[in-house]
Formats: sequence, C-alpha cells, structure tokens
Amino acid sequence: MPDTLTPFPASIDDIRAANARLDPVVRRTPLLSSPFLDEIAGRRVLVKPECLQHTGSFKFRGAWSAISALDPDVRAKGIIAFSSGNHAQGIAHAATRHGVPSVIIMPGNAPAVKIANTRALGAEVVLYDRETEDRDEIGAKIAEDRGLTLIKPFDDPLVIAGQATCGLEIATQAAEAGVTSADVLVCCGGGGLTSGIAIALEAEAPGLRVRPVEPVGFDDVARSLLSGRIERNDRVSGSICDAIITPTPGELTFPVMQRLCGPGVVVPEELCLKAMAEAFNRLKIVLEPGGAIALAAALYMPETVEGDTVIAVASGGNVDAPMFTKALAEL
Amino acid sequence: MPDTLTPFPASIDDIRAANARLDPVVRRTPLLSSPFLDEIAGRRVLVKPECLQHTGSFKFRGAWSAISALDPDVRAKGIIAFSSGNHAQGIAHAATRHGVPSVIIMPGNAPAVKIANTRALGAEVVLYDRETEDRDEIGAKIAEDRGLTLIKPFDDPLVIAGQATCGLEIATQAAEAGVTSADVLVCCGGGGLTSGIAIALEAEAPGLRVRPVEPVGFDDVARSLLSGRIERNDRVSGSICDAIITPTPGELTFPVMQRLCGPGVVVPEELCLKAMAEAFNRLKIVLEPGGAIALAAALYMPETVEGDTVIAVASGGNVDAPMFTKALAEL
Repeated sequence: MPDTLTPFPASIDDIRAANARLDPVVRRTPLLSSPFLDEIAGRRVLVKPECLQHTGSFKFRGAWSAISALDPDVRAKGIIAFSSGNHAQGIAHAATRHGVPSVIIMPGNAPAVKIANTRALGAEVVLYDRETEDRDEIGAKIAEDRGLTLIKPFDDPLVIAGQATCGLEIATQAAEAGVTSADVLVCCGGGGLTSGIAIALEAEAPGLRVRPVEPVGFDDVARSLLSGRIERNDRVSGSICDAIITPTPGELTFPVMQRLCGPGVVVPEELCLKAMAEAFNRLKIVLEPGGAIALAAALYMPETVEGDTVIAVASGGNVDAPMFTKALAEL
Repeated sequence: MPDTLTPFPASIDDIRAANARLDPVVRRTPLLSSPFLDEIAGRRVLVKPECLQHTGSFKFRGAWSAISALDPDVRAKGIIAFSSGNHAQGIAHAATRHGVPSVIIMPGNAPAVKIANTRALGAEVVLYDRETEDRDEIGAKIAEDRGLTLIKPFDDPLVIAGQATCGLEIATQAAEAGVTSADVLVCCGGGGLTSGIAIALEAEAPGLRVRPVEPVGFDDVARSLLSGRIERNDRVSGSICDAIITPTPGELTFPVMQRLCGPGVVVPEELCLKAMAEAFNRLKIVLEPGGAIALAAALYMPETVEGDTVIAVASGGNVDAPMFTKALAEL
C-alpha cells in the first residue's frame, strides 16, 4: 500500500473542521519578529507566540477541539484529564466555556498555584498520592461513576487536529510574510503540537519543514526519529522545561513525525533562560523554559538550522516570577 | 457653525487611508483577556497589547503613517525627530524599513541602552546637552542642512491618523467579542493615541467611549478636560511612567479629546507595577509602567469605570529588567 494511504490520526480535513469549531473562541496569535533577534540568529526569525493563547499555552486548542466535537449529551456529563500542567488549564477552561464539568487528576505534590489556577478555571481537582496510589485506577473509577470522557494530552486525533490549527495559521502568516521555505522549530513533548503542525503544513505550506526541539537529556523524539522506533527517556523529571517532558513520543504522533519532520534539535536547557530574556526584551512576551526552547535553538544554535528564515513556535508562558527573574539575569 | 464642521486633525477617511498604508507592515495586535483579570476588576476586561507592535509600542503606527505619506523625493532626504523614547524607536524603524535615513535628537544623558537601540534600528543619533544647548535650534539646523522632514510625536495629523488605526482594530475586535458599549481606557501622554482612537471609535463603534489615563501628579489632560483649557504639569520628570509624561496636551489633540472623550482617570503610579505583574501572570505580556496604567485603572479602580466591560489599551513594553523584576515582586 503506498505511503500516502497510511491512515493519519488527523487529516487536513479534520484539521479544517477543528479550525472551524475553534474559530469563535481561539486567539489567533500574531507572528512576531525583531531585527535584534534576526541579528543574533544571523537569519530572519519569526516567532509564533502561543503563550498568548487562552490559559497561556497552545493546549487550549486541542482541548477545545476535542470537547467541542463531543456529542452534546456525552459532553454534558463532563470531561476528565490527567495533568498538573498546561493541559489541565486548557481542559478546565475549555470545559467551563462549554458549560460542562471537568475533573483534573493531579499529584498531591503539584505546586499549590497550579492546583489553585486549575480550580479557578472551573475544574474539580482530585489529588492522588504518587507513591501509594494508581492514577489510572482513580481516574477510571471517577470516569465510570460519572460518565466522564477522558481527553488525553496528545495521543488523541481530535487533540492533534486542534493543535494543528496553529499550523494553519503559520501557513497563512508565513505566506503573508513572503516565506515559502523555512525550518519550523516546535517545542516538543509528546508530539501533539509538532505532529499537528506538520500535517497542516504538509497540506498548506509544503516548503516549511517541522523540526521537534527538546532539552538535552530528554531527547526521546530526536532519538526515536534517528533509530526509527520509539525510544524512552531515562527520567521524566529534573528539567526546567517540565512542560515538555514526556517519557516517549506518542503512539499516534510518532509515525506522523517520522514521515513529515526533519531531524530533532537538542538544546542545553540553560539556553532557554537566555531565549526567555530575549523574548522579554525584544518581543515583549513571557515564555516558560519549555516554551522558549525552539526560540533558543533558532537564536543560539543557528548551525543546526537551514535556510534564510526560521520560524520558532513559542508554545507556552506559564512560568512563575522567581524563574522569570532568573531568566532576566541573563540580559 | 455646527460642531460637526469643526475641522479635526484627522478624519475617519484619513484614518482609513493611514490604515491602508500600514496594512502590509503593521502588526495587528490581538485583543487579550483572562478570567482571572475579570475576577479582579469585577467586570469583563479586554486588553489591546500594543507592546507587541513593532519596536514595542504603538508609536510605530504613527511613524509609519507619517513617513509613508511623504512625497518619495522628500522622504528620500530623510526624517528627523526629537525623542529619547518610544517615538524615537518607531521613527527609526519605520524610516529604515522605507530605506531612508533618520536622525534622532536625544539628550546626552539618555540611558545608553535607548541610544544603542535607536542606533541599532538604523537611526543616526545626535546628542545634545540639556543644560547648555537648545534642542530645537540644533534640530532645525540639521533639518535645514540636509532637507530632513520633522515628524512630531503627537501634534501631527498623519501621526494621529496612524495611532488611530489601533482604534479601527479595537472597533472590529470589540464587535467580534460582542461588545457594543464600554469605556476604552487609553494610556495618555500628549494625546496622539487617545485622540486618534477617539476619532476612529466615533465613526466605527460609537458605543465605546475613550477615557485618557494618567499618573497622579502628571494629570494635565484630566485637568484640561475639567477646566476646558490646556493645563500644564508642574514637572515632567520623576515618574516611573516616563513614556507618557508630557507638559501639556497637544494643540491638535486636546480639542479632539475635549469633544469625544469621557473624564480622565488619574492613577497612583504604584498601581502600574501591580498591573505589570498581572499582565505577566495572566496575559503573558511585558508592559512598561506607563503602558500598564490603563490596565491598572481597569483592575484596581473599578469604581471609576462604567459598564460591564472595560477595554484597556496597553500602549508599550519598553521596560528594563530591574524595573520589571520590581514589578514581579508585587505577585
């Protein structure tokens, strides 16, 4: 069977349908630039600031895509998700704006501010003990008791289609900026955003090549792309880029990345702090370390990128004041 | 003669023409919001983040509007401006992108980083000694010698028309958000942005009422609106809101504000630091103190605002790391 018939988790039609569902609510983020960043990188740099998206990260796109596609009767019973981070906030906000309940399962030792924020966005937060309790078991019981629908953070076709709407915007905005050929660097965890953008660009801007960007020591996607099979990180904690750390690429997302993405870029995490500082200084946006890693690659590892323009997706900005202050010391 | 025939510095047609000239280059800034800000203000808060504009403030709009309208032969000789701040950067960048020279006259004791940035944007910076030299004399001589065109920071019809394009966007975006009636709070110095937005909204969204916002001690516009004549500030330095401090409202901008704006709002400047912190935390944008003063009024002085929605224009983000770190301590 020819390659083009391989079933993809989301087709361009699925993505366009997700985009139509998102249209009344999504924030269409602009494409930012600064001659000062061009100077650092030695080429034109365009930045897609998804930190400006609702709840401060691209995750709202996937959450809205999945929740809005549910049968209304199913949706009314509510949503459940496992997350202590950006997915939690995206789901909570998207569910609340649909007027339906959401339950977020979080480890009891998650930062208090993340628990408080998720609750303030309208979710019920259920805490579990990482040492003694089984997260999946707790979630499955609550889901069954209440008839909730589980929405996974990346291995879900509707979530991938939602994140892909960011790629549709990049295609349009790059064309408006006269860019037909460039590397598109994407901060990569499980690969939902990366694979989604890749599918969108294959259809809408085939001269743009997506490349996943990860921190040193958590480069499961880069290694998986090299070996041709799913590789695992030795650990999933201990990085300032916590928002984009996952054990492995997703089962749905990896085949997409394998077919459509260029080689991964692996970045020392201290460069993320420098990129956060320049994003503050030149673009006036707030990035979290994991959300700055693609920009870090664009600015400080220009030898890994091809072409006279590079596009960096800045995936999120949920950072606390102490970490941001630390980044500003890089200026 | 009826009021409606009073000649305005810029008509809605002038503004639409400026908008067409800006269209290929201006950054169309989104309208941001957060349920957390709505909670603080007790009403819906919409924020227009002009910190995301080229050079970090709305000033690029007016600069481009004025430079792009010049006769090409005149423009080719170059532009001159007096500014140590956001107007300087807007002019430098707009001139450079037109491929024409610019000269910016700055006091010799301006911060080194502002001088360096203005030069890096392509301008020639001429420094003068505030104590012993006459700025206007120096500028006039250079302008005459080289045939440069002076562009003033606010009392220029083409500059006002350029800033007004921000108002056209607010009109469209407010309608998309279902808002037909609201106070629009605008950070106000000489009144170019405030009067421009007011003219645009009078034509495009007459239910939106513009109100200038200034810091305590520098409330020349608020007092002028009350007394019906141009009032002067006692001093023009010593505020963290330096970007929006001018001695008096403009001669062109004041009559517009007088006819179209609601009462001024006067804000203690320490509230700007709190608003900067919340803009960081909830909107993921970087604001300078003067650029945050309208948001400060929206969040912390809700009793001065009318209606169930308030729109705050966040006019600029050119702030250094120490001042921003100080603001983050408010969280």
